[in-house]
Amino acid sequence: MSKLGSAPTLDDVAKLAGVSTATVSRCLNNPGQVVEATRLRVQSAVDALGYMPNFAARVMAAKRSSTIGAIIPTMENAIFARGLQAFQEELHQHGYTLLVSSSAYEPEIEEEQIKTLVARGADGLLLIGHDRHPRIYENLERWKIPALVAWSYLPDAQLPCIGFDNRAAMAELANHVIGLGHTRIGVISGISAGNDRARLRINGIQDAASQHGLDPSDLTIIETPYEIENGASAFSEVMSQNIPPTAVLCGNDVLAVGALHRAMEMGLNVPRDISITGFDDIELARIATPALTTVHVPHREMGRRAASALIGMLENQASGHGNPLATHIVERQSLGPPPDA
Amino acid sequence: MSKLGSAPTLDDVAKLAGVSTATVSRCLNNPGQVVEATRLRVQSAVDALGYMPNFAARVMAAKRSSTIGAIIPTMENAIFARGLQAFQEELHQHGYTLLVSSSAYEPEIEEEQIKTLVARGADGLLLIGHDRHPRIYENLERWKIPALVAWSYLPDAQLPCIGFDNRAAMAELANHVIGLGHTRIGVISGISAGNDRARLRINGIQDAASQHGLDPSDLTIIETPYEIENGASAFSEVMSQNIPPTAVLCGNDVLAVGALHRAMEMGLNVPRDISITGFDDIELARIATPALTTVHVPHREMGRRAASALIGMLENQASGHGNPLATHIVERQSLGPPPDA
Repeated sequence: MSKLGSAPTLDDVAKLAGVSTATVSRCLNNPGQVVEATRLRVQSAVDALGYMPNFAARVMAAKRSSTIGAIIPTMENAIFARGLQAFQEELHQHGYTLLVSSSAYEPEIEEEQIKTLVARGADGLLLIGHDRHPRIYENLERWKIPALVAWSYLPDAQLPCIGFDNRAAMAELANHVIGLGHTRIGVISGISAGNDRARLRINGIQDAASQHGLDPSDLTIIETPYEIENGASAFSEVMSQNIPPTAVLCGNDVLAVGALHRAMEMGLNVPRDISITGFDDIELARIATPALTTVHVPHREMGRRAASALIGMLENQASGHGNPLATHIVERQSLGPPPDA
Repeated sequence: MSKLGSAPTLDDVAKLAGVSTATVSRCLNNPGQVVEATRLRVQSAVDALGYMPNFAARVMAAKRSSTIGAIIPTMENAIFARGLQAFQEELHQHGYTLLVSSSAYEPEIEEEQIKTLVARGADGLLLIGHDRHPRIYENLERWKIPALVAWSYLPDAQLPCIGFDNRAAMAELANHVIGLGHTRIGVISGISAGNDRARLRINGIQDAASQHGLDPSDLTIIETPYEIENGASAFSEVMSQNIPPTAVLCGNDVLAVGALHRAMEMGLNVPRDISITGFDDIELARIATPALTTVHVPHREMGRRAASALIGMLENQASGHGNPLATHIVERQSLGPPPDA
């Protein structure tokens, strides 16, 4: 028996179960090749001793693990949480564990974490968006690690992606806003550096402006990290211009909720005095006052499909490619025609 | 050179750098023992080839990694996100990586994930709350994995904890509510099974009731998962009694925001017709309408201290024990005297 207080060894398990260490090894790595009664006896000994197989040794022996690594920009944005929960549930049903790392929206940190997850035996990776150094794609190929991008659908991307068209989705909303008669438009966006989703949404608004004969450079665009308080500050800033906009399009619902609150503090009636829109359709959009007109993104569906696609890549050599998910505008009470309509 | 398309080997690095494989090994595992110029040459070769040291082999050689595993109940509650971000930032500054797993509030899933993280070389663990099978503590001892509990301070717990006194914190708020004259009180709590924080907050309200000569069994207590929509439904339920309460204490701000919204939909004025309180003081509490009276929990400070404590346990054999963090009531607009005061 191993010394009191030190970790139980393979040898301890073998002794307790009354079998050879080779048999114990086989039970752990190739259970299908062992008589059930023996396997149960070994499993009891493993449980009784709290035996933890040396993972490194197991990996070298079996060259197989069942873990997916996901790197998200931040844990503090509810949309990633929502999508990851669905992602994890789907993985769990297929016997995969999920390990999550967060990169603080920094491509350098993401690169570091990719290495960490791969070094720890992740079978496949889920990454968010497309902003990263090309060498990362080269490395993933060299290491033969299947990887999938979520949250942003680009048909010509380096990696297969499960996502939606950020640019078209925001363009649809902006077209709707301009269609109501708004010509002076403010934009409160997330930080676009390192965040292709934020950048594409700005592009979508610019597309809609151009399509309606408005000059995209007339748009007031403020970039700020996705926090309620930042949405509020940015709204003050946008409205402090000589000729303020009549509609403020926000890069996501978190910013929009901050803008709504600041509007209320400033004594402005939404939507009568100023219209505000968001993006994502998080639960907050529904209960804000007034309720927020926004773009619905199917986060859970995206998480579920991303899990399916990644499992397909790992188990069936599937390509991982899929069609973009559909988004749609959710009309609530925060968007109306401009005051001078 | 290795075959095109297969992963670069130690040998490839050695050839490219013009050194022996033993030198490459030393550069990777004991860089302090190598001449700087040589180390840089090897590092360049590693980078150029995208060489990924076989982690299993490295672990067996060095018996040291620098990763912390954290298991949280869910990714969808902003408080864990907030605390974990601070936790991760502090770890990052000390050279540790964080891998996060989520247990869906299920102790069995938490147990499974503890094994996964330990098997993948986690140096230490962060766990939430104290509801788990005693055998988990035995296993952690056997495997010699330092573990710390956060979010719940119990002086006599099995593991060192960094947290606050959930029971006393909620009792303070409930005492304040009752002190304003409320005698009929409703409680909307999270699910207490497997969640000691939720259970202790209910106990705190019961303590305050008893202290004021109220019968704790007169409290209407509804348990529901922490979602805005559930807070709304539970509020309807609480208010549907023959003699409804005059104050509704919610187990956290998410439930309270749902309750506030339903009150507004029901045409009730908060706090004139009904008082509502929350717990946590998330950003939402501040911008809700009316703004929410709640208990402020220093989530980021807790995350930062938990990281410090765990690093101390790993590097300096510190015990990990600390004093409970302080909470305080934040008075906003959702709490007032009862209508019949």
